[in-house]
Amino acid sequence: MDILLTPLRRIPVVRGDVFHAIKASAPGFAGFGEAYFSSVDTGAIKGWKRHREMTMNLVVPSGAVEFVLFDGEPGGAGEYRSVTLSPASDESYQRLTVPPGLWMAFAGRGGGLNLVLNFASIEHRPDEADNRPLEDFAWNWGP
Amino acid sequence: MDILLTPLRRIPVVRGDVFHAIKASAPGFAGFGEAYFSSVDTGAIKGWKRHREMTMNLVVPSGAVEFVLFDGEPGGAGEYRSVTLSPASDESYQRLTVPPGLWMAFAGRGGGLNLVLNFASIEHRPDEADNRPLEDFAWNWGP
Repeated sequence: MDILLTPLRRIPVVRGDVFHAIKASAPGFAGFGEAYFSSVDTGAIKGWKRHREMTMNLVVPSGAVEFVLFDGEPGGAGEYRSVTLSPASDESYQRLTVPPGLWMAFAGRGGGLNLVLNFASIEHRPDEADNRPLEDFAWNWGP
Repeated sequence: MDILLTPLRRIPVVRGDVFHAIKASAPGFAGFGEAYFSSVDTGAIKGWKRHREMTMNLVVPSGAVEFVLFDGEPGGAGEYRSVTLSPASDESYQRLTVPPGLWMAFAGRGGGLNLVLNFASIEHRPDEADNRPLEDFAWNWGP
């Protein structure tokens, strides 16, 4: 599955840390169209959605978010991958690059504000995305 | 003073709201070089800094942050402006565009995580920025 995980720097700074997100020269950069934030409540799941044109670069600057990707058709065969991102440690503070064509859903795994920055290669256009309900996919989200 | 404030949409969504940040077609967009987050502790102040090349587009997706801009030289005459951004209301959820050449400092005004997204027109380069201590400026930050 053609996703990319890029470790990001967390820089300790007096009076407030700095967290890298993305540079134009970085791996996974696919142009810029729009940046927006999605929050996801603790224990809640948003999805599934598949973009046909947008490359997403996803960064979690607050809380923890589990992203699940699927490269098949709903109800069919395919590979699932789960990635949990969080600014809480160097190991979990990474950028997730998702090319068009993959199904994705995501869940709030932190107790406070779970925040996703989507640095998207194109501006939001509902006609380039497909949506399907949670129950159309076999992924077990657990408790 | 040539700063720009652009109202941004907060979109209520079941399981977690969506917050706009910037589009390539939006007012204030000045190209993309790097996006990064700065946090600022409650009551703490970071600054002063002046970029000579970077245009900053600043969005606050968590907490509240007071930005102060100054268009003069340290110790000299000039205009100060203060803008407080927060996702807490439609009125306070705006994007602040800061062109190169202005001095800026910012303070954490929320009780939790005060987070700034800097959507910058160029990649970070220390040689294009000047730094000066808080006491070089006459601004009264209050209690």
